[in-house]
Amino acid sequence: MKFKAIVLDIDGTITHKDRRLNLRAAETLRTLDIPVVLATGNISCYAIATAKLIGLKGYVIAENGGVILTGYDKSPIISDNIEECEKAFKFLSKHYDLTKLDPEYRKTEIALRRDFDMEKAREMLKTQDLEVEIIDTKYAIHIKSNKINKNTGLKNIAKFMGLTPADFVAIGDSVNDAEMIQSAGFGIAVANGDAEAKKAADHVTKASFGDGAVEAIEYLSSKGYI
Amino acid sequence: MKFKAIVLDIDGTITHKDRRLNLRAAETLRTLDIPVVLATGNISCYAIATAKLIGLKGYVIAENGGVILTGYDKSPIISDNIEECEKAFKFLSKHYDLTKLDPEYRKTEIALRRDFDMEKAREMLKTQDLEVEIIDTKYAIHIKSNKINKNTGLKNIAKFMGLTPADFVAIGDSVNDAEMIQSAGFGIAVANGDAEAKKAADHVTKASFGDGAVEAIEYLSSKGYI
Repeated sequence: MKFKAIVLDIDGTITHKDRRLNLRAAETLRTLDIPVVLATGNISCYAIATAKLIGLKGYVIAENGGVILTGYDKSPIISDNIEECEKAFKFLSKHYDLTKLDPEYRKTEIALRRDFDMEKAREMLKTQDLEVEIIDTKYAIHIKSNKINKNTGLKNIAKFMGLTPADFVAIGDSVNDAEMIQSAGFGIAVANGDAEAKKAADHVTKASFGDGAVEAIEYLSSKGYI
Repeated sequence: MKFKAIVLDIDGTITHKDRRLNLRAAETLRTLDIPVVLATGNISCYAIATAKLIGLKGYVIAENGGVILTGYDKSPIISDNIEECEKAFKFLSKHYDLTKLDPEYRKTEIALRRDFDMEKAREMLKTQDLEVEIIDTKYAIHIKSNKINKNTGLKNIAKFMGLTPADFVAIGDSVNDAEMIQSAGFGIAVANGDAEAKKAADHVTKASFGDGAVEAIEYLSSKGYI
């Protein structure tokens, strides 16, 4: 079984723990002949910069699926659910002193500094009738639409590529990668991954962070999957 | 003579010709103990993403000096001359079909696709009384304030670091690097550099693009300059 493309997370998956790009991972991605899509909870210009520096085609899923780009010169395709997130933010701000990350760049979700009790905040939010969820990617806490995730982003971008999620191998580490790892044709979690990501995966690497992504690509080649 | 910091351009200086990050250059920059400032004509979030992926401290000069950031959590410091640039853009748009690059992210200058006759445009602009200049960085044509350049950006960011441009080694390749290469304590142009950058430099590398930056760092170490 050959897969036609790879979608993978950036922070914690092709980086070191401190978010520095793993240069072996970058080198390995450069050797691939199939399209590589970057999928991140980060903003689109971070995703595009990463794609450009690695040397990819510019297919990116940003803001946990809320924003996709199908090339460097293309306009972002945006699913506009920020209003619900803003309502949740206003509600939680009554209880916590929250710090937004990159607010001027975020179009569909709100990212917050990880300096408050997310579990309690999540409980409180249940009292509100909002179509949002709170997730912790270990790099930020995100208030996001509960209708959008990296897998909805993958479905959207796959269409533009003439593919479906089943044509993809997905590689990630976090709770926000779980849906895409689950629905991809083959899913891999790196060793540092969250339980949710590992549970959704068909294969878990021995190595962590970017070294895990390198191991994952080598595993896929050895199996003839790519 | 020891220099206290390095400022260097991104595209064409630590990348390959096609803008992929030169991984040897990234690796070399990671070995340095002194602060490394990235100075680019690109937007601040591209500069910040590059700094993060390389593993630098987050000191960046973006938009050819118009925007500086002194760390990842800091607010950008912006010199607001975009109005003059917009006037120049409106004037030139009567004569050319111009395409803005990243307009939603650019705060102080206008970047244009390189698909029109810049020399003619420059001549035409002379008929207008505007405090702007047009430069070609080989990656984009920029309409920018003629009072702002990477060196004004360097002066500003150096203050925050308790330094002056004379404390820096500057490395670049383009006409928009010339002022900073000139005013730095020591200036280096990579072999692919423009005549203006090479003329301003104290040293020109034999190697081009990112390999030139690696050679530059090795040269500086061998001379005991860093």
